[in-house]
Parts: sequence; C-alpha cells; structure tokens
Amino acid sequence: MQTNVAPSSRKTTDIVAAGAKSLSQRYFVSPEIFGEEQKKIFSEQWVLVGHQNQIARSGDYFISEVAGESLIVVRDKRSTIRAFYNVCRHRGTRLREDQSGHASAIQCPYHAWTYALDGRLVGAPHMDDVPGFDKADYSLHPVHLGLWEGLIFVNLADSPAPLEEWFAPLAGKFSHWNLPMLRSAKAINYDVQANWKLMFENYSECYHCPGVHPELSKLSPYDSAENDLTEGPFLGGFMRITKGNSLTMSGKSCALPVGDFRDFHRIFYYSIFPNMLLSLHPDYAMLHQLRPLSPERTLIFCDWFFHSEAFERKDFKPEDAIEFWDMTNKQDWHVCELSQQGIASRTYEPGPYSTRESIPAAWDREYLRYVS
Amino acid sequence: MQTNVAPSSRKTTDIVAAGAKSLSQRYFVSPEIFGEEQKKIFSEQWVLVGHQNQIARSGDYFISEVAGESLIVVRDKRSTIRAFYNVCRHRGTRLREDQSGHASAIQCPYHAWTYALDGRLVGAPHMDDVPGFDKADYSLHPVHLGLWEGLIFVNLADSPAPLEEWFAPLAGKFSHWNLPMLRSAKAINYDVQANWKLMFENYSECYHCPGVHPELSKLSPYDSAENDLTEGPFLGGFMRITKGNSLTMSGKSCALPVGDFRDFHRIFYYSIFPNMLLSLHPDYAMLHQLRPLSPERTLIFCDWFFHSEAFERKDFKPEDAIEFWDMTNKQDWHVCELSQQGIASRTYEPGPYSTRESIPAAWDREYLRYVS
Amino acid sequence: MQTNVAPSSRKTTDIVAAGAKSLSQRYFVSPEIFGEEQKKIFSEQWVLVGHQNQIARSGDYFISEVAGESLIVVRDKRSTIRAFYNVCRHRGTRLREDQSGHASAIQCPYHAWTYALDGRLVGAPHMDDVPGFDKADYSLHPVHLGLWEGLIFVNLADSPAPLEEWFAPLAGKFSHWNLPMLRSAKAINYDVQANWKLMFENYSECYHCPGVHPELSKLSPYDSAENDLTEGPFLGGFMRITKGNSLTMSGKSCALPVGDFRDFHRIFYYSIFPNMLLSLHPDYAMLHQLRPLSPERTLIFCDWFFHSEAFERKDFKPEDAIEFWDMTNKQDWHVCELSQQGIASRTYEPGPYSTRESIPAAWDREYLRYVS
Repeated sequence: MQTNVAPSSRKTTDIVAAGAKSLSQRYFVSPEIFGEEQKKIFSEQWVLVGHQNQIARSGDYFISEVAGESLIVVRDKRSTIRAFYNVCRHRGTRLREDQSGHASAIQCPYHAWTYALDGRLVGAPHMDDVPGFDKADYSLHPVHLGLWEGLIFVNLADSPAPLEEWFAPLAGKFSHWNLPMLRSAKAINYDVQANWKLMFENYSECYHCPGVHPELSKLSPYDSAENDLTEGPFLGGFMRITKGNSLTMSGKSCALPVGDFRDFHRIFYYSIFPNMLLSLHPDYAMLHQLRPLSPERTLIFCDWFFHSEAFERKDFKPEDAIEFWDMTNKQDWHVCELSQQGIASRTYEPGPYSTRESIPAAWDREYLRYVS
Repeated sequence: MQTNVAPSSRKTTDIVAAGAKSLSQRYFVSPEIFGEEQKKIFSEQWVLVGHQNQIARSGDYFISEVAGESLIVVRDKRSTIRAFYNVCRHRGTRLREDQSGHASAIQCPYHAWTYALDGRLVGAPHMDDVPGFDKADYSLHPVHLGLWEGLIFVNLADSPAPLEEWFAPLAGKFSHWNLPMLRSAKAINYDVQANWKLMFENYSECYHCPGVHPELSKLSPYDSAENDLTEGPFLGGFMRITKGNSLTMSGKSCALPVGDFRDFHRIFYYSIFPNMLLSLHPDYAMLHQLRPLSPERTLIFCDWFFHSEAFERKDFKPEDAIEFWDMTNKQDWHVCELSQQGIASRTYEPGPYSTRESIPAAWDREYLRYVS
Repeated sequence: MQTNVAPSSRKTTDIVAAGAKSLSQRYFVSPEIFGEEQKKIFSEQWVLVGHQNQIARSGDYFISEVAGESLIVVRDKRSTIRAFYNVCRHRGTRLREDQSGHASAIQCPYHAWTYALDGRLVGAPHMDDVPGFDKADYSLHPVHLGLWEGLIFVNLADSPAPLEEWFAPLAGKFSHWNLPMLRSAKAINYDVQANWKLMFENYSECYHCPGVHPELSKLSPYDSAENDLTEGPFLGGFMRITKGNSLTMSGKSCALPVGDFRDFHRIFYYSIFPNMLLSLHPDYAMLHQLRPLSPERTLIFCDWFFHSEAFERKDFKPEDAIEFWDMTNKQDWHVCELSQQGIASRTYEPGPYSTRESIPAAWDREYLRYVS
C-alpha cells in the first residue's frame, strides 16, 4: 500500500485552480456561519475524539466535547468502546467533571442515579413509587462511535453513514505506521485566538515555512512537498528530510521507528476533515485535534505517539520531538492569530492563492460543500 | 402559633403530582426568559434586601442591587427606613459607590448636588439662575419598602400590593424566633455559575443529602423531613436533629437559644418567593438572599443571625455553625453548577421528580404563574 | 491672531440654552447608537491619531486604531506621512503587531509579501506563475491623511472634505503655541469604563472642579472660565491661573515657555470634535486622544508636549506637570465612570444643565448633528 503515498509523476504542488482565492470574511467572523458549521459539520460528520489506548481497560473513560456537547467515552465491561452524553436523565446534572478516570459505573453526583457502563439506568432511589416510571426509559443518551486505525471518532447525527464508508478511500494507506499500537508520550493543549479553518489552511501549505519556521526549513525544505491527496476531505502528501533523520531539535531520531519504511527521510502530512491533522514521522506520529469554540477561538489538542516498545529503551528521547513541534506549532498559531485580526478588517477581501497553496484551496472547496 | 409548623397528620413528602417533571431547558438558559423574570418577578414582587439591624442608627445606609438597579437603603432622621435609586437627578451620576456607611446627607460626588436622607434635593449650586428650575422637582426617585419580621423588602413596581398583604398567610408563624431582634455575626457571599431557580429547587429537597452532604446527613437524616407549606410562594417544613443539638461542626449548640421552643431538635427550612431562604435552628437563623445576574450566574448572600445577648457570652461559638453551613452551602452550589452544565445539553429534557421532590415541583408551579 | 482667544466682552459662561438637558440614556448605552457613531463619526470625520514628531525619520511608523480598524501611519522615503490599513492583500494577515518602530519596507510575517513605504507591493514569492496576477493590483489600502498644527489626522471616508476646510475656522488661532515643533515627554494611556461622550462633557465644564479637583481649584478657580468658542465642533476658552505660574504639583513653571504670550497666567482648553482635547499651558501642551471601544468603554491616550529645547535644560521638570494632570485625569475619569453607572438606570432621565454647563450643552448639540 505504500505506493499510495509515493510521489505521483506530476508535481501537483504546481497547480492551483485558476483564480482560486481565500475564503470571504464572513466564514471567519460570523456567529451565524459558526452556528451552521457546528450544526452541519461538527454535529453531522465523524469527529476525532481520541485514541483507543487512552482507555485500555474496561471502566476507563475520558470526557470529550463536540459541538458544545460534553461526552463520556468509556470502555464497557465487554471491552466495547461507547460514548454517551454526559447528562443525567433525572434533572440534567453533568455526570462526570473530571477529564478522565476509571469507574465501575456512572453515578450522578446529585441524587445518585446510577448507570451501567453500557448506559442502562440501574439505580434510581425512591423512583419506584412514581407511577409509570420505568428504568428502561431512562438510559443515558448514546452517541454513534467508530474506530479507524486505533483512533476514536464520534458522530452526533441520528443515523450517520458508517465510519468505514467514510474512510474507505484511505483503506490500508496508513497501515505501515501501526497507529493502533502506538502510545502517546505527551499531550499539549493550545488555546488559539483564531478561526479553526485558518489552522487547516496553515497546515496545508509550506509557502509560509521559510519566514515562519526557520528551524523546520533547515531540516526539510519548503519546496520538497509532493501531494498525493489533492481533492476531497483527505488532503496532503509528504515532504523530504534533507538534513538529519527526523524532525527533532537535534535532527536525530528520538525513538524506535514506528514501522518499516522503504524511505526513512519523508514526513507525511494529512488533514482529515473536519478536525484532524496527522503528521507521520519515521519515529513518531503527531496528532492534532481541533475544537472550535467561537468564530475567533479554537482549542487544539496535540499528541505525540511512539512505538510502545520505545518507552522502555535508553535511547528514547521524546522531548526532542515534542520540543521541536511545540515550537513549530506556536509559530503557526501565531500567524493564524495575525490572520484572524486582519481578516476582520472592512478592507479584507479574498486574496489570490499562489501555486504553493493548491491544498488550502482544495480544503476550502471541500469546506464549502457543507456550509453555504 | 407554633402549631402551624408542627407536622401535619399526613406525610406530604410522600406525595408528588402525577407526572411532575423538572422545568424545560429554556427556563435555565434563555436570555429572553431571564429578561422576563427580571421584569415580572424581580421588578414587580417584594424582594429581600437586608435586615433592619444593618442600619441601626439614623444616617446608616447600605447599597443593594435589585433587577440590575442600585438602591440606597437608608434610615432617615426620623428613623424611618427608606430606599432610593442610587442615581443623581442632575446628570445621572451614581451617588454612593461604597457598600454601606453612615452619612448626614447624600451628596453627589460629581457636581455636589445634595439630598436629605428623606430624598429631598436641598443643595444644587448655580441652579437658581436656570429659568423654571425648582428643587422640589428633583428629589431622589423613591422605591417602595416594607418590613416583615425585621427584614427589609423593596418593590420596584409603581403601585405594589402592600407587603402585609403578601405576608398575611405567614402572620405570627415565625414569632418564636424573634427575628427582628437578632444580629448577624457573619456574612458570606457566593458567586454561583448556575441559574437562580436551581438553588431554590436544591434547597427544597433532601433527596440529594445522602450523597452530597454526608456531614449533614449524620446529624439530620434526609428522610426526617415533614413539610407543612406545600403549595404557593412560601414552601417548606422541618427536619429532625437526631444526633447532637444543632447543625454545627461539633454537633453542639453554639449560642443562646434564639427563642423558647417545645422541641429543640428541629430545623425549619422555608423558601420565600422570589429570593429568600430562611433556615431556623434552635440557636441561630441562617438567611440566604439570591440575586440573579444572568441565566447562568447568581450571587448568593448568606447571613448567620444570633440572639443579640449571645455575642457577649463566653460559650458563643458562631464559627461552629458558620463553618458547618459554609461547607454545606458549597456542596449545594457545586451540584447546582453541575446541573446548569448538563441542562444546557441538546439532549436535556425535563426529568421525572421522585416522591422526595414534591416541594421543588410545587416551587416550579408557583414560578410558572409569573413567567410564560 | 492671539486676540482670537482673548475673553469676549460678554461672559458666555453665564448663558445656557433655556431648558438644555443632558443627553438621553440611549446615547450612552445602546450598541446600535455606538455602531452609528462608529460609522457616521469615526469612519467619516477627521480623527486625530498622533503628532508628526512621533515619526521624525523616513521609515518610522506607528500603529493606530480608528473605528475598529488597525492603521499603519508611516513616513515614506520622500518624507511624506501616509496611512494604510494594517492588512496584507494576500490572505488578510495583520502586517505589524508592534505599536511603533522603524522599517525600510512592510513585510507580511506570514508569506513574506513585501510592500514599499508608499504602499506598493514589491515582493510576492511564487505569484508570478499565477495567471493574471499583477502586483499593481495589490497595493496596501490607503487612508486619507492630513496635518494640522503638526498633528496627524486620518479620515476613513472614500472622499472626505479636505482637512484644511474643516480646520479653516481655527486658522492661526494656535500659532503662538508652536505645536508643530513641540516634543512629547510622556504618554499615559487610560482605560475608562465610560462612554466617550461623558469625557467630552466632563472636559467642557469646571462646575465639577471644587468637589472633584481640590488641587486644581487652588491654582485656577472654577469660576475664572471664559469661553470664546461656544458653538460648533470646536469649543472652549481659557481659565486663569491665580496662584503660581502653571498647573503643576509645585505650582511653578516646569519648562521653557512654549511661546511668547502677552499673559502667562491663562490655560486654554479646547475640544476638537470628535476625539481630541487640547490643553494649552504657558510651558506645555497636553493632548488627549479618545478611542471609543464600546458604549461603556473608552481608551484615552494622553501626551505632554514641551518645547524641544526644554529637554536639554537643567530646570526641565516635566514630571511636575505630568503628575499634576495624571492625578486630575484620574479624578475626572472616575466621576465619568460613576455617571456611566447611574445613567444605565431605568430611572435616569436627562437632567437640567446649570449656567456653568453651557459648553457641554453646545457639545451635545454638535454631536446630535451626526447621530439621530
């Protein structure tokens, strides 16, 4: 399958749709557009919430927020991963306020209504005297959930298309990286004062790299990019490492390879609509989750994943990769914030994309399929 | 009169209206509903603002905020307690910005217009030259004010029904506690991120006590509640003290009894629509004032009142009671905040009240008489 | 020309239009009115942004915000002062985020598009391959700019009336103060929680001085005011110094005189619609710039200007003046904030101006020519 990610014969980075321009102002500042996005994208599409190894044992759970809704993602007693709205069916109380943990059941902190890990109401004091009350009517509200490459996705729609269908075009494409087996060594959260789409557009081109990322540019030249996914919800390709062996502060590998590659000097960058960025290095995978909070604010959760056996070895230096990308992330979020500020001007108008910005232009086209 | 508060022959706690459910989401999150409440409830009903002993001498005043309006509550030179809008009639300047104090007159800090304690404009430099100007036209705007059991209530309506009429159903009911003579030993303010109605509903049942208040439950079992006011704007009853002599950290009395009771092992809890909670213990009275700031935020002012002679005695340990209820208050506000969070979910729908929640259900019914 | 500012034969301070009252509440609290002001006043009139000596050399620039728009004010290579919207024509990025500096060109921090100091796009990597792209179409958006007495004004309108026309009524009136040659020794910014119009009304009368400014009143009595500009966009007059030689903490002069005056014991105070206050002392000029942020919030930038030769002299004590007015400014902003609070009350209604408030009344009349 690795041939899928090999460079295509034509350099797609040289092509940009004639007259392609950045999005109109309203997409970055309008509360109405933001509401439409929350409804038509984040409430109806498959949204990344985490990795299966975060909840390895039955009873492990974590909390995630999608489209303003707090969800409990839990591994039940049969080891099935499930998601529920974090809301008691009695008087609406938030059930869990910690961000993760382990529990044998989900008990409401207010009046002690108790739910099994599969969502069934199993305890409700003094309710048996209420005429017509039946516990079976008061299970937790479930949320559709699916796994792809070890990653957990949820969908708030009533009857979403299956996750497998959505990811069919990527079947096998990432199997070399063994994503389901990797473990996160570090998570860093960023609170960015910019519209979420600016981060996608930023991630999708390296036209900005010479000025914004001098450290990155030394290891991996901005013009080494070759894209193989150039239209649709999955976009990206690879860039070459021309100096050193990985993207780290030292330029050296910092961990066991996550897989067996023909060429250890390429980094693959893919954006997965609507909230995921996947950056695959020879020795680690970096995963960004985006959570839009308002037109002008986005939370970004970044995780660094390594081979599970790497953790025990003496040559394991995850901080070498983490520090590199934490620095690079902050450089990116900063220019995204500057863009947000300028786009709010009455004089802003969509500007012309260069030939190095074909992927942002493709991402915009995909986005506009969902929002009017 | 004490027979009024004795347990009725039937256990009202066992009765909940068939199918009674918690209020719909909009009552907890809608700015429009909040505006309607501010208008129809807090601007037209009698609202608690303090106790007469806070302003014992002529010239003493305190500031209170009702329905977004800052009010000066002052004892005038004839010892009458009055309330005025805290707004100069010249150019609208806020007159007093401290929270309480003593003054012989109310002088505007901007241009020195001066008002007597009864609200008359008595000084206005350089205004005599203005044709047609008459000081008599520029008294402070007064607010209707009344006293009940030593407590001060105001009403922002133009022509409210008399306070005596409103409180007629409670005539004499609380005389054993000598409320007009009590003095506050401590005030604590809480800033709660929850709708004000959640605090009323919380106060009105002890179904939540076993899980939320382990310390309280040891002294006073949740199932010892007996209610005598079960419908209307005044709701509540008593609970028994089955261990110790009062609700304190030590379980012992902490002050002189506030009155002479037949039974010293009962705590009486009453909610007074729309912003008052009155908790009567053998040795102290606790008073909560609620001030809604937004659909999701409420200030709560809590005072602990004791027999005025208790303050001089060596066995006076008010902190024993204060610490107990400060702890218990915080436990309550916390679950109210969790409720606010969960109720905002798209999946929240009114849930069924248990047989232990007849008073919250009655409170909701009363509330719905004011707001559509 | 100095006769222009001499006291007129009649004492205009004694005259106030019959029945003149302060503005209605909506002008101080309504977001709609604020929006109208931003559009019809701050986006269409000449607005003060600084002094030419802030950017003495070619390449010097500062950033100013007008009507929510960030502007770059820069001295170009031919020494012409220009203003541009601080927005890249590529993807809208904010170009400069520092508040002032020096640069040979304006380069975007995102993708390195580069503009000459006259606004022309001179560098745009990888854009030559884009069909139809022409740098000449992507100059920075310019803003109309003019100089009056060394002060820099901008106008966001498409085709504004010339600045010279606007200031024609003041021709020569301030030439004695040599404003174009003065240098700022200090800038202090204030963040005031009050509507911007309250600061104009406050500045326009000394009726409040006895109570609010005891220190000022000792040096310059409130009833020494004589106004010569009593109607229109330029309002004010002078007050006498009856004790000491200047408005300073010590009461003494603190610098070389800024000009040669017949009478060194007068302070001239003028408000220039819509965002400038000019206070002329024998030995310094104080300049306030107002920037409304919301109906309830205003930034105020205050500068103290001195004779450029004063800076080198041993008797130069600018802090003597700065401390005096910093104290006095804060006294003023405080009562403005109290006014803002009280005006928000439902009971506020326009109050009668006294005979000492003819200038605020005139200012209100001028303001109402712009906003309905």
